[in-house]
Amino acid sequence: MMGGDRGLDVTAAGVALALDRHPDLSCILVGDEERILDALDSPVDSQRIQVVHTTESVDMHESPASALRFKKDSSMRVALNLLGSGDAHACVSAGNTGALVATARFVLKTLSDIDRPAIISTLPRTRGHLHMLDLGANIDSPAEILMQFAVMGESMVRTIEGIERPSVGLLNVGSEEIKGSEVIKSANELLKSSTLNYIGYVEGDDIFNGTVQLIVTDGFAGNVALKTSEGLAQMLTKVIREEFERNLLTQLSALIAAPVLKSFKNRFDHRAYNGAVLLGLNGTVVKSHGNVDGVAFSHAIDTARLAAKKDLVGHIRHDLEASRTTLAPAGLS
Amino acid sequence: MMGGDRGLDVTAAGVALALDRHPDLSCILVGDEERILDALDSPVDSQRIQVVHTTESVDMHESPASALRFKKDSSMRVALNLLGSGDAHACVSAGNTGALVATARFVLKTLSDIDRPAIISTLPRTRGHLHMLDLGANIDSPAEILMQFAVMGESMVRTIEGIERPSVGLLNVGSEEIKGSEVIKSANELLKSSTLNYIGYVEGDDIFNGTVQLIVTDGFAGNVALKTSEGLAQMLTKVIREEFERNLLTQLSALIAAPVLKSFKNRFDHRAYNGAVLLGLNGTVVKSHGNVDGVAFSHAIDTARLAAKKDLVGHIRHDLEASRTTLAPAGLS
Repeated sequence: MMGGDRGLDVTAAGVALALDRHPDLSCILVGDEERILDALDSPVDSQRIQVVHTTESVDMHESPASALRFKKDSSMRVALNLLGSGDAHACVSAGNTGALVATARFVLKTLSDIDRPAIISTLPRTRGHLHMLDLGANIDSPAEILMQFAVMGESMVRTIEGIERPSVGLLNVGSEEIKGSEVIKSANELLKSSTLNYIGYVEGDDIFNGTVQLIVTDGFAGNVALKTSEGLAQMLTKVIREEFERNLLTQLSALIAAPVLKSFKNRFDHRAYNGAVLLGLNGTVVKSHGNVDGVAFSHAIDTARLAAKKDLVGHIRHDLEASRTTLAPAGLS
Repeated sequence: MMGGDRGLDVTAAGVALALDRHPDLSCILVGDEERILDALDSPVDSQRIQVVHTTESVDMHESPASALRFKKDSSMRVALNLLGSGDAHACVSAGNTGALVATARFVLKTLSDIDRPAIISTLPRTRGHLHMLDLGANIDSPAEILMQFAVMGESMVRTIEGIERPSVGLLNVGSEEIKGSEVIKSANELLKSSTLNYIGYVEGDDIFNGTVQLIVTDGFAGNVALKTSEGLAQMLTKVIREEFERNLLTQLSALIAAPVLKSFKNRFDHRAYNGAVLLGLNGTVVKSHGNVDGVAFSHAIDTARLAAKKDLVGHIRHDLEASRTTLAPAGLS
């Protein structure tokens, strides 16, 4: 089920791909009915696709407060309502992140002890990938919040990937001189005394070159790391293209190297990493990048389907409660 | 002048390159005399190379406190002493960053109002480069400290690059929902009321894809951005090599694409970006990466030479005082 009625062709293509892949999947599309039916273009299988008509939508630059207050009939809000009422099992949106976090928090409520949801996503490695949170929903997270991120993230990796005891690292900086603000040091202690498979501090280069399966950080550093990587990847792509287009000779070598470059590109196809999950809510909400194609959107749907199917929210609820019980006697919760 | 007696061949090669490039340059090499003379191998021009003998050195994993207390005759300490006494005009070290920051702060003292030096470096763009600080010397920097970073960084870009009014951006995160912790918001106000050419908030992707000439951030986020980029670049390099080495056909296409790949590599030669400057000290201290070659080391020497020649420290001292006078009446300093 998806909110957002911009880029409907993308949504429609993504839905078609996901439905093809998963016979157990059905989708409720929320937005302008006529435009949705137009975008779907092939005859709609009413067993698997339902459309819920709304006319409002949240603007990409609208403030979360404004979305909450004035867009009660927006596709985003209605989609989240369907999740809240149990009519849907997960919600995928390519809309405004701030509005999505705020509206999801309002409609679904957060799990016990959780103040705000955290954003988790996968990032590529030479072999496989890792998970990292928070990618930007929280700022100024004290140690206890970082500990909650770790518990929720670990639930996610365990449940979705089927890894029994995923390794967990806490993002820190390298220079011994400043290693560990008080918050990081306290979080390190909490993590060490937890039952998680905590391996200690990791640094920025461990994101892409390390082996740790889950990296925990606050939303500021997480967002900076993510955006910086995206920027660097874009720049390198642009420059390699420039170099290959320089003259006839380089264009010829591009032709010859094309299979290698394509294989390289496929290994890091950012579309496969589309679909960040909002953790800590009473429901599965997945955020797709705004500016992607149908393939990427279908991956966000895949993630939502898997999270719902494996009862990610149930596992997180259970793990948060267990961690509270474990920590409480030590007076740490 | 360089501290650190590990990788002496690298130091020696770097010194030779820098001396060749700059007829006005002379170097004092601090460390084990015999080993230094061995590494230099060609007959030494005693007009331009001096050796100061020390036997101790700071270990790469030694704590700053231990280096300060127990390594009073280390190459690092002696090199900084030479700078402090005026016998040298700048100090280049490839040693332990934490120890270097702490020792430099102890020996040289910080400029008035500055508590700890900040680390600034250049990073590549498609065309040209930008400067960013702090890359990891400070954590938990309040708004006033971020403002100081901006003033010092602007001095650096103006003095070293000769750009009259470099544009300055403050690193923040994108989601409207959390945009601006209190510290970031306050720093934004300070910057807006300053005389700097402040353009406002920038995000992680503006580092490599933006146009702003100086990015200001705290040492935690700065270090994470830097290390993340290094990790991503390493991973992509590794994978593209793997793809080209896959079989005979791909190896052949690598041969044909070699000039393009080489030209690409040269445009982002990380060696050209070696040499981060510690700003806010009574003296020019440049940190070289530990694991580099002579070419990279020579670039760190170039930066040190230029900073000393252009009296960077004098400009920073002046600009900090001017910014204090400007800010004081408004009650903001």
